[in-house]
Parts: sequence; structure tokens; C-alpha cells
Amino acid sequence: MSTQPKDVVADLPRVGVWLVGARGAISTCLAYGLAGICEGVLEPLGLCTERDPVARLPLVPLEGLVLGGHDVCTRSLTSSAAELVQTGVLRSELVEHAASRASDFEGRIRPGILDGPDVGGLDLDPRAAELGSRSPREQIAHVQADLAAFQEECALERIVVVNVSSTEAVSAAQPEWRSLEELEAALDAGKSQPASMLYAYAALDAGCAHVNFTPNRGAGAPALRQLAAARKLPHCGNDGKTGETLVKTVLGPMFPARALRVLSWQGYNMLGNRDGEVLRVESHKESKLQNKDEALRSILGDPGTHTHVGIDYVPSLQDWKTAWDYVHFEGFLGARMSLQFTWSGSDSALAAPLVLDLVRLSEYAARSGETGDMPHTACFFKAPLGGGTHDFHAQYRRLLEYVESHVG
Amino acid sequence: MSTQPKDVVADLPRVGVWLVGARGAISTCLAYGLAGICEGVLEPLGLCTERDPVARLPLVPLEGLVLGGHDVCTRSLTSSAAELVQTGVLRSELVEHAASRASDFEGRIRPGILDGPDVGGLDLDPRAAELGSRSPREQIAHVQADLAAFQEECALERIVVVNVSSTEAVSAAQPEWRSLEELEAALDAGKSQPASMLYAYAALDAGCAHVNFTPNRGAGAPALRQLAAARKLPHCGNDGKTGETLVKTVLGPMFPARALRVLSWQGYNMLGNRDGEVLRVESHKESKLQNKDEALRSILGDPGTHTHVGIDYVPSLQDWKTAWDYVHFEGFLGARMSLQFTWSGSDSALAAPLVLDLVRLSEYAARSGETGDMPHTACFFKAPLGGGTHDFHAQYRRLLEYVESHVG
Amino acid sequence: MSTQPKDVVADLPRVGVWLVGARGAISTCLAYGLAGICEGVLEPLGLCTERDPVARLPLVPLEGLVLGGHDVCTRSLTSSAAELVQTGVLRSELVEHAASRASDFEGRIRPGILDGPDVGGLDLDPRAAELGSRSPREQIAHVQADLAAFQEECALERIVVVNVSSTEAVSAAQPEWRSLEELEAALDAGKSQPASMLYAYAALDAGCAHVNFTPNRGAGAPALRQLAAARKLPHCGNDGKTGETLVKTVLGPMFPARALRVLSWQGYNMLGNRDGEVLRVESHKESKLQNKDEALRSILGDPGTHTHVGIDYVPSLQDWKTAWDYVHFEGFLGARMSLQFTWSGSDSALAAPLVLDLVRLSEYAARSGETGDMPHTACFFKAPLGGGTHDFHAQYRRLLEYVESHVG
Amino acid sequence: MSTQPKDVVADLPRVGVWLVGARGAISTCLAYGLAGICEGVLEPLGLCTERDPVARLPLVPLEGLVLGGHDVCTRSLTSSAAELVQTGVLRSELVEHAASRASDFEGRIRPGILDGPDVGGLDLDPRAAELGSRSPREQIAHVQADLAAFQEECALERIVVVNVSSTEAVSAAQPEWRSLEELEAALDAGKSQPASMLYAYAALDAGCAHVNFTPNRGAGAPALRQLAAARKLPHCGNDGKTGETLVKTVLGPMFPARALRVLSWQGYNMLGNRDGEVLRVESHKESKLQNKDEALRSILGDPGTHTHVGIDYVPSLQDWKTAWDYVHFEGFLGARMSLQFTWSGSDSALAAPLVLDLVRLSEYAARSGETGDMPHTACFFKAPLGGGTHDFHAQYRRLLEYVESHVG
Repeated sequence: MSTQPKDVVADLPRVGVWLVGARGAISTCLAYGLAGICEGVLEPLGLCTERDPVARLPLVPLEGLVLGGHDVCTRSLTSSAAELVQTGVLRSELVEHAASRASDFEGRIRPGILDGPDVGGLDLDPRAAELGSRSPREQIAHVQADLAAFQEECALERIVVVNVSSTEAVSAAQPEWRSLEELEAALDAGKSQPASMLYAYAALDAGCAHVNFTPNRGAGAPALRQLAAARKLPHCGNDGKTGETLVKTVLGPMFPARALRVLSWQGYNMLGNRDGEVLRVESHKESKLQNKDEALRSILGDPGTHTHVGIDYVPSLQDWKTAWDYVHFEGFLGARMSLQFTWSGSDSALAAPLVLDLVRLSEYAARSGETGDMPHTACFFKAPLGGGTHDFHAQYRRLLEYVESHVG
Repeated sequence: MSTQPKDVVADLPRVGVWLVGARGAISTCLAYGLAGICEGVLEPLGLCTERDPVARLPLVPLEGLVLGGHDVCTRSLTSSAAELVQTGVLRSELVEHAASRASDFEGRIRPGILDGPDVGGLDLDPRAAELGSRSPREQIAHVQADLAAFQEECALERIVVVNVSSTEAVSAAQPEWRSLEELEAALDAGKSQPASMLYAYAALDAGCAHVNFTPNRGAGAPALRQLAAARKLPHCGNDGKTGETLVKTVLGPMFPARALRVLSWQGYNMLGNRDGEVLRVESHKESKLQNKDEALRSILGDPGTHTHVGIDYVPSLQDWKTAWDYVHFEGFLGARMSLQFTWSGSDSALAAPLVLDLVRLSEYAARSGETGDMPHTACFFKAPLGGGTHDFHAQYRRLLEYVESHVG
Repeated sequence: MSTQPKDVVADLPRVGVWLVGARGAISTCLAYGLAGICEGVLEPLGLCTERDPVARLPLVPLEGLVLGGHDVCTRSLTSSAAELVQTGVLRSELVEHAASRASDFEGRIRPGILDGPDVGGLDLDPRAAELGSRSPREQIAHVQADLAAFQEECALERIVVVNVSSTEAVSAAQPEWRSLEELEAALDAGKSQPASMLYAYAALDAGCAHVNFTPNRGAGAPALRQLAAARKLPHCGNDGKTGETLVKTVLGPMFPARALRVLSWQGYNMLGNRDGEVLRVESHKESKLQNKDEALRSILGDPGTHTHVGIDYVPSLQDWKTAWDYVHFEGFLGARMSLQFTWSGSDSALAAPLVLDLVRLSEYAARSGETGDMPHTACFFKAPLGGGTHDFHAQYRRLLEYVESHVG
Repeated sequence: MSTQPKDVVADLPRVGVWLVGARGAISTCLAYGLAGICEGVLEPLGLCTERDPVARLPLVPLEGLVLGGHDVCTRSLTSSAAELVQTGVLRSELVEHAASRASDFEGRIRPGILDGPDVGGLDLDPRAAELGSRSPREQIAHVQADLAAFQEECALERIVVVNVSSTEAVSAAQPEWRSLEELEAALDAGKSQPASMLYAYAALDAGCAHVNFTPNRGAGAPALRQLAAARKLPHCGNDGKTGETLVKTVLGPMFPARALRVLSWQGYNMLGNRDGEVLRVESHKESKLQNKDEALRSILGDPGTHTHVGIDYVPSLQDWKTAWDYVHFEGFLGARMSLQFTWSGSDSALAAPLVLDLVRLSEYAARSGETGDMPHTACFFKAPLGGGTHDFHAQYRRLLEYVESHVG
């Protein structure tokens, strides 16, 4: 069966989007949503690249994007979609409408590599477990072979690899991550590495821009950033800023700007999708919580502030992430006041358009010969690779400045 | 009895702060808070002029400020303070500590002019009612005589007049407001004007910078802006952005930045202080609500957004303004999500430090020979005189840029 | 075309449910939900008559209910259903599943009588307007003819008439409502009456039990209660207690039980369905708000409590009624505390099962020869016909006692 | 110095209230509040025994109560009071007003016995640590000697011992708790026991009614209940139901009564007082959480409900317990809805009047010759000794029935 994309207009530049975690909720939302927009039955809400002024950049049109990817499970895209219909995130009309495009995408999903500490779920693809047990060099070669086949079969000008997989177990930083040379040696010596790093290595080494939408290690270590520099590629990450942390980094700067002292900021997150299930395991929860807390502390800048972030798995909420934050603060006269908010949003429907935005910005950066960690994408991430302020508005201004400097 | 301020260090430049509404909750908080900070028993929280980077401007020190003012009621400052202690806004230790300074201030409060449509409350000063019934030129002369006496008695280098009075009844725009010439003619002809405009006229004409912290007309009309230009004075307003509207203008820009469509934004405000009591009257509520709604609509920029702002008088809340906002929005895939927040803060304790910030910035601008509507103070107001964006972060950046350009 | 119900098991007793407002959201939910339960694809959630101990009464089985009704608009049930699917209240699978039963029901909907003050919406049935302009005796005869035809065609043992129509404009109490005799005379004289009273008259006079689920006048007036007594029929109402008021009457009793003084109770309701649209008109809003406020005040029993109930039309919320209540209370030492809640529920999905419960309880009461205002149904209503406590738990206990006394 | 209570009207029956944890926030609130009510400067809010119908019981008047107690720390009552003034729970006028009564009470506080696993805080009374290390029989004798001295010095007719101390570490149930005989043997053998059990033993054995307001073991074990029976004494507990759990048990029954299925009930508690500090230690948190969760699960009665209760220590909140609960539930048509609430109350000001209520009810029961676990007090406790429903309204009805049966 040919996976030649029937759904792409003939004379458009074709850009591949390789999704690591291609059967998950974000990828499913992305695939159906992209199809719906291309077929004109859905408005491009949530996509800042479709809205002035970012839309003024000469980005690849949405119609030019071709989807493929890896996953470690065998759940069909159709069943992922049915689940999201049940949850009220996807509409059944859209699923019917996009059936053909979805099936094309499904035809381009390959077994991925299972991260070492991950115990497989019920629907684990045995090939993923087998791949996960091979040597790192073999794993990289496998990923690169799939990318090469994708490029050839779909006649792609360029591929952007995006990691949207589940949160990995936290791993201690390894000495070989300090430089590309040391990492290469460790790979040669067969030392196993987090799956997210192998994907990043494979992508960059194969000439693909890389987006790490997860809190996983990805391409954040110096060794991989050197690889990106060596291959002259742009890449960005980590950990998409979709919901509660977004609101935190929007609201947080108000307090120092008004010279109000934040005494305590308590954040309670609840979610019920696979992400939530994985986060029940302490080792997986840790990296996520750290990013959420770090962003806030950096904005408030007061070591005396008491902060807390919790994530609880609440199955009935499914994809509807619900978070309650309580901010206790002190002002003039020592008056103690509070601000509390409840956020209720579909995590996957919030994430998917950001992934599309990042793919388009990465493809544009690659096409323009830009390299490195794309500081103009900081507003998309909980832990931007290039560091800098976590103040959302300052980050967003940086994106606007980038746009202005490129479209003059 | 001399009202010579015993509380000001001898060799400091003395700057007068003339509070229109000197017996109200904001003035009371300001007076006791300022005393507490000067005596070292209170931290200067809530004052951005005491915090880096704004504090780098060579502003008048807090110790150099001398308070005086007008009011239309006879309630003593001590009883206003006792009420705020009861409410939990002021601490009784502070009230005792600051008794001497407060008494000095009280000695410098004069009867003000009652706005025409205002019916006097129980504690109305009969002199204010009498003044309110005089011709506008006489009213102006009265105010100016009080300002002149204040300056002389307290040996002040400069006075900033701040309107912190209750919300006036909405008045239709008058033809004579279009130009200074026409206004002068109307004043000569004895045509009555809103009290807030007479105060602004008196202040600017007497060479004082003017801050309108209320939603009242103040110096916003072209005629009075021409007067400020003619006297080469800075002035700013209108309507201090203290609580729910502040949060709205902080959160609002997040939605367009993420290409999320706000379907509805409902805001319910409750408060129980005198401000709340006055706002029970529809004619007084109108101007306040308009500013609150306008700021949000301008940020969201989508005519299809359904918005609502309500203010209800809830006596038991006293000064603790409590507001609930519900934001219903739509994202990718048409997913409908919500963000709701509850704000609970002491309105007067939030307002008072902003007034001090604005006095210091106005005094500095006057001293520096700057004239006009002080666009760098937009972040302090619901309806900034110079217009421009309502996005709080963009407004605050403007203040930072002002600071940078002046302390370079 | 025969409307003989194909969907009713042959040997079951058949009970007719005549819905006044048969094309509205409550009726639509009821029709599809009932079908889903009968076909075994839906759990009977929300129905206390399906749960122990109420289920121990020998009630008519759900399979024995046959639906018919009146409406003043021409909107098809299918389009009402499509709207509720869009809103996320109904699932499209269920709509498909229940298509045949729904079509049977639709075949049994007749044009109703338009209430005098009601201006017709876009989809007004011209026959309803015409009927609304006839003499009251003619209107009653029309309704009774439809009821008789329903009974005959569907071979029904008994009919319960339920008013689930939109809120009528508030009407001043009329002198003729004081007694049946006076009402009969006024009807004879052709004096027009609220549609809800004509329906109640027609139903009771025709020997049908009557349920008034709306805040409309219904059968609450002495004249109609005398009619019910004369015909030896049970009837109940008014105004279904589905959401915010339910929570209020559950929470409210806690405060006096703990000797806590409620200083203020502010309630803000938002909804976006047709009910909300109608309530935008002040005259329609009034009766609804009164019931909501009255229930609370009666529970708290403190004339000093400040209460407020508001309803705002927020189109984007559609059927998802969202309400925020803020309770400010005082306890030992004069400490001031608060409890706030946000309720978010589908108003129609909450109402529909209560209607089914009431139909079954009314049918049982009629079958058992009970007459009058069914005090054991007080827990279903904001303004129970028989008065009494509004404390939900006390009301519910009364229902349990009724059950106990009947199933011994 | 004589501790003879000058503040008790001469001819009143004198009832002693012996507070275990006499220097804590609850005792401090109780002492100042009781003084304020007796002196007529405070309303008896929060006390259901001062409100109809419970007030119709011939209870000991508040003026007849004499306070004394044990504590393991040396913090003075005055400093506890100053802290609560700072927190906004106590008013400074009241503290001044009640200074003499408070000082009398302080004169009657004796060093208590430290629970084994408790590490002493900064202000630990070394005598308490010493007592904690003695044999259980010596500890009991010490407590009883203090009780005897209290009774004699203050000429008391009766003493009620109330445990309002901090949460103890959870201890595994011991075999000797099964019967009084076994417990006596274990005590003789010198086997150490939780402090709360030793207090309960000492109290009951000395003929005092006992109230366990804490989640500690107290008199809940069969051995101690046998002791109460043997001495013909009433006693009650455990774990005062003051805030979030109170609301849970008020709201919870609504869901089954409406046949709504609770999918998830998440409860997040935050507090910053000493109780909160102690609960940071997992072993101390456990017993508290179990009571909170158990009450809810028993009401909902659905094993499929997902529940969670958390308690976090948030120092800035001090005594102002703030809790957020999110209830996710399913109704007719499978519609998913939510109810969320935020509770904000002073935990000690909520607890103190309940303690007074319980003292009066216990004294009355003792005076009336009633023995055992006082089922009519279930509405005051998270884990009522006699078990039974957790439905607050059902529990409260039991209290009303008790009142009715006694005042006929």
C-alpha cells in the first residue's frame, strides 16, 4: 500500500511532520484538526501562526504539511479519535469528514522505541519493546531509516520531528551529555539513553529540525545542542505551555509590577488522560512539576514565596485538565488579599495547535538557515531551551519582534 | 493652631499632596500608610516607586510629602480609620503610631465643593453644600485660595492635586468642553460644571499637576487639556486600575496571543464601602462600568465577544472588593473551555499606594518640565487620558521605558 | 397517519405524558433519554424513582409512558435534538438510536395556545397565535380535544399533563382567581387568562393530574386548587428545583444549624438557552427570581441577611447553566468567613428526569385516589404548592416518609 | 496565688471545662470568646446551644463554666492571643476586655503529658516531656491529681474534660484496647499508650465526662468505652466537624437524593496554623485524612467514586483554613457536570463554639445520668463514636429529636 499523500495539493512545497507519540491524544487532535481546517470545515482557532501578525511570515501553508510518526502502542488512530469524541473534544462529524486523511496518516505510523524505565501498557507494540532493548546506535539507525522512507515516499522537502510522547521517568544527568564527543563515545559504547534523546539525536543528525513538546530530556543537553549547531539546524523545547502554567506566567508578572508580595501560590492540577495516568508514577511526575514551579518562582523572584504544584490523576476528567490556583498576597498596610482561579480546558486541543505553530516556525527557521534554540519560541514552552524570562508577555513580545524583523 | 508639618525632615524638598476626598477610605489608608512607612513600622508594599527599577528615578522621598485636602463631609479621619480597623484593613497599632501625623493632616482638610447632582449623606458638611451652590468662578477661587494657603503654611515647593472623591453622576458632554476659550466663557456666564472639572481647572490654573484617580470627568475634556498645555503642566487619569480590571487587562491579552476566541466574559463585582454605596445609584454606576468594559473589549478586539460587568453593593464586604469573572472561550477543534477567577482585595489598600506612585511621578514630571497627559502612567488607569492599549503589560513596559530613558 | 405508539410493550398499562412545551429542550431531553433507557442503552441516572427507596413504590414502568404534547413553535424535535448534540448534552448515537420513538412522539405534538403577552419568536406556529387570540373557553376546549384524541389513539389509562413551557410574563393576581366559581364566571365572560392557567384548567377539568414545572401561574391559584379538589385529582408544582436553587436549599440550612449568621448571599446565574433568552425580558425574569430568593430567605430566617439573585443571558453557554454563589457569614468572635461555589450543569438534562419522576408520582397518586397538592413532591420545586420548609433535606425526608407509608 | 474564679456569679452551679491543649488556638478562642459573651461585648454566634431549639434544654449557663487545662508547651495564652489578633481572628479590644478572665484561666493551666512519638517544638515545656516518659499509671495519676485540685479550688460540681490538642501520630490498634480488663493489665505492666487515651482514661476514671474533639484515639477503643459504661458516664467524639468536611456532609447527600452519580470528589485543604504544621508529618496527617474521606464515601455509597483529600501546610494562611473541593458528577443522558466550592474560614473560631456546645451537652447528659457515646452529638464530629450516618442533616435531626424528647 502506498502512503503517498493524496491529500496534498500538487504544487505545494511538502513539509513532513514526524510525530513521536503519533497515536496519542495530541497527535490525534492535530491530525483531525489539520484535516478539518484544510477541508474548510473548521476555523483555525488556537493557531497563532494563522493570525496577524505571526501569519505575515511566509510559513508553509497548512495544506503543505504531511503527517507521519512513531509510537510504542498499537491503539489505532480511529480508537483514539473515538475516545476524544466520547470526551467531547472531537466532534463525530469531523471524524467522519477527515476519515480518509486520518487513514493516510495512520498508514505512515511506525513502531517507535520504548524508553528504558517504561513499563508497557496494555496496548504496547511488541516491536517497540524489542526496539527499546537494542543498542542505542541501532535505535538511532532505525529512527533515521523511518525518516528517510517518509521523506522519499512523500516527496518531502523537509521534515520537522516533534516529540509529543508521554512523560518519561526522570533520569539523572549523565557525564556524557556534556559534549557531543562524549555522547558519541557513549553511544558507540552501547550505553543506553532516554528515548527522547535518541529521537533528538536521530532527527538532528538526519538534518531535521526538532521540537520537544514534552518535559523529557530531548535535545536540551549540551551534547545535542552541539549536534544541532554542527548540523546547522534550529530546534526548540521543552514542555509545551498549554494551560495552568500559561495562566501562571501571564498573571505572575502582575504582582512584582504592582509591588505586591506573593506569600503563597498553591496550584492543584487534575487530569484524567493517559498523560495523567503516567504522571501517577512519582518518577514521571517529577520533571513536569519542576518546570511548572520553576517558571513561577523565576517570575516572582522572591525566595520567601511559598509555592506548591500538584498533579492528581482523576480519571473521569479524561482530557479536561482542571486546575485550581490560589494566590495569597500582601499589599500596602500589610493587607492580605487573594486571587484564585479555576482553569478548565482540553489539554490536547490546547496543545495540538501549538505543535502546528512550532512546526511551521521551525520549518521556516530551517528554510531561512537559522540555527540554535529559537528564543522567539519561548512563549510556547514551560522550560524554554534558551532560558530567559518566563513572563509570557515578554516572551510573546519576542515572537512579535522576530516577526517584525523578518517581514519588515 | 498652626498646621506647620512637624513630621517633615527639615532639609527635604516639601511636596504637597492635596487630596480631593480627604476623609475617604483611600486618603485614610494613604495617610496612615505613609506615616507608617516614614516611621519605619511598615514595609512599602504596593508602591512600585519604591521598587526597582522605578525607584531609580530621582523622585521626591516619601518623607517629603505633606498631606492636605478637601472633603464634603465632616467625618473625622479618626473615625474613618476606626472603620478601617474594624474592617481589618488598618491595624490598630499603626493607627496609634501614626496619630500625631494623622492629626496634622486632619488640621489641613478644608470643606470642598459638593457636585450638583449629589445629595448629601448624613455627615455632609453644610459648608460644602453652600460652596456647591455658588457660581463656578467662586468655587474655583475658593479651591485656589485653599491651595495657596496650603503652599504657604507648609512651605511647599510644589503641590500635586489628586482627585480620590466618590464617583460623580454621569453628565452629558457639554459643547463648552471642546476648547478652553469656550469653557472660560461658560464659567464667566456662571454655567455650572461637574465638581471634578472645577477642581481640575483650579489645580491646573494654579500651577499644580493634577491626578484624576476617579472615573469622573476631571481634566479629560479638551478644554482642560488645553489649560494643562497652556500652564505647561503634566496631568494624568482617569480611574485607578486597582483590582478586577487590573486582572482583566493582565489576563485578557493571553487569549488573542494564543488565537483563542473569547465567547463571553462575565464580570461580577461586589463591594460594601462608600464607593459601593454611591454606585448603587444608576447614574453613578454608569461611568465606572463603561471604563471597566471598554478596557476589556479593546484588548480582545472581537466584536462578537459577549461581555458583561456588574457592580453590586454588598454592605457586609465593606472595603473588601470581591469579584468573580467567568471567561468562556473556544480553541482548536471548536473545543469550549473556561477560566474563572475570584479576586478578593481591599480596594482602598490597593488604591492608596498607586496614588502615592502617581503623585511622585507627577511631581517628577512637573519638576522635569514635562507637560501633557503622561502616557507612561497608563498602567495605573482604567481609562488612560492619552488612550492607547489597555494591555497591562504593554502599559507597564511603557513605564519601564520611561524610567530607562530618564535614568539611562 | 396513525400515531399509535409502536414502542410500548403490548400488555403494559399505558400512561400518557402530555408535555406543554413539547419541542423545548426539557421535552427533547426527556424524549430521547426515556427512549435510551427503555432500549437499554442509557442508565437511568437522575431519576430518583429508579433508585431505592422511591423505586419501591409500584410506579408505572418507564416503558409504559407514551409522550405527546403541545407547543407554540414549529421547530422540529430533530432540530432541537441536533442543537443539544452540538451543545454536548445529547450524544449523536443516542439520537440515531431513538429516531423512531422520537418520530412517534413528534407525530403526537399539536399546536398549543400562545400566552397573551408573548411575542412570537421566529419559528412561531401561526396556529398557536391564532389559538392564543380565541376566547378562553375555546382555548380550553381545544386543549381538551387534543387530550381526548391522545387518550383514544394511544389507548391510555391515564394522562398526566406537565407544563415545561417557557417562563410567562408575570401577571398581577386577579380577583376571579380566588374561587372556582368566580373563575368560571370570568371564563364565561371571555376574560383572558395566562396560558398556563388555561392548560391547568383544561387538564384538571378533563380528569388529568397536572404538574407545573415552570414558575408560571399554573394551578397555584385557589380557583384551580378547588377544581383539582372537585375533580379529586392530585397536582403539584411550581418551578422545578434543578440547579443553583437546589444547592442553595441544601447548603442554606447548615448555617442556622451551626448558629452562623449569613451576612450576605449573592447568587449570579448565567445561561444561554431559550429559557435564558426569555428571561432577558424583565417581566419574565421577575417570577423566576422571586422563587429563587424566597426559598433562601425562608431557610435563613434572618431579615438582616442581604441577598441577591441575578440571571444573565450568556448565549455561548447554551444549556450549560453556570452559577456562582458567594456566602459571607459571621461566626464566633465575630469572625467573618466565606463559602463560594460554582455550579455548572446542563439545565435540561437536570430537569428532564425530575419531570419523569413527577409524572410517575402523580400517576401513582391519581391511581391511588390521592388528591390535592402532593406535599411529598416539595423537594422537586422552588415554590412547592403546599408551602412548607424549603430545606431540601427536610423535603426529601417527606418523600421518604411517603414511600415508607405506602410500601410499608 | 489563688486561682479561685472571681468571674463566676456566686450562686451559679459551677462546671469545670478542662482543656487538653489549653494554650492552643481553639482554647484561646474559646477562652476569650466565652469571656466576651459573659461580659456582653460579643454575640454568641456559632453556638447552637444558644439558639432555639437546642437552647431550650436546661444547660449550664455559659457564666457557670470555669476553664482550666493541660498543655505541653509554655507559650503564654497572651502570646497565643496576640497571634490570633495579628491573624485577624481575635479583636484587640476583646483581648483587652477579657484580660482578667484570661489571666485566671492561665493560672489554672498545668503541664500535660507529651505523646510518645511527638518531638517537642521550640516552646516545649520540659515538665511535659518528663511526664511523657513516666509510666502510664503515673501519667494517669498526675492528670487525675490536677483534675482533683481543679475541682476543689474552683468548687466545681462537675468537670468535663475536652481534648483539643494537636493531632497525634497514627498508632496501630493494640490488642489490649479490646477490653477494659486487658487495658488495665497493660497499664499495670507499664506499656505505653497514646497520650489521648491516657487522658481519656484519667478523665473517665475520675468521673468526668469526656469529649474528644481530635482525630486522636481518645476514648474510642472498646476498653475505654467499657470504662465509661462502668463509671456510668457520657462521652463523645471524634474529630470536630468544623469546615470542609462539614460542607461535604451537607452537600454530599444531595447527589444520591437526586440519583446523580458522583464520578470524582477531590478535596484540597490548606492551612497555616500549628495544626497545619503538625499535619505536615505524614504519620500525623493520616488519621485526619481518613476521617475526612470516610465520611464522604459513606454518604455517596458508590464504590466507583474516585475521591481524594489532601491537606497542605501554607504558613501565610495561618488559622484561615482554605479548601477547594471539585465534584464531578453524571446525570441523565450521561451529562457530566460539576460543582466546586471554596471554603475560607477561621478553623479555631469555628471549633471553639462547638467545644462549648459539646461541653454543655456532655454536662447535661452527665447530670441527667445518661451514659455512653451520645449519638445526638454525631453532627459535631467527623467520626462519631457511635457510628451511623455521616449525613449532616440526618445527624442534626437526631440532635433536634433529643432536644424534643427532653424538653417535651
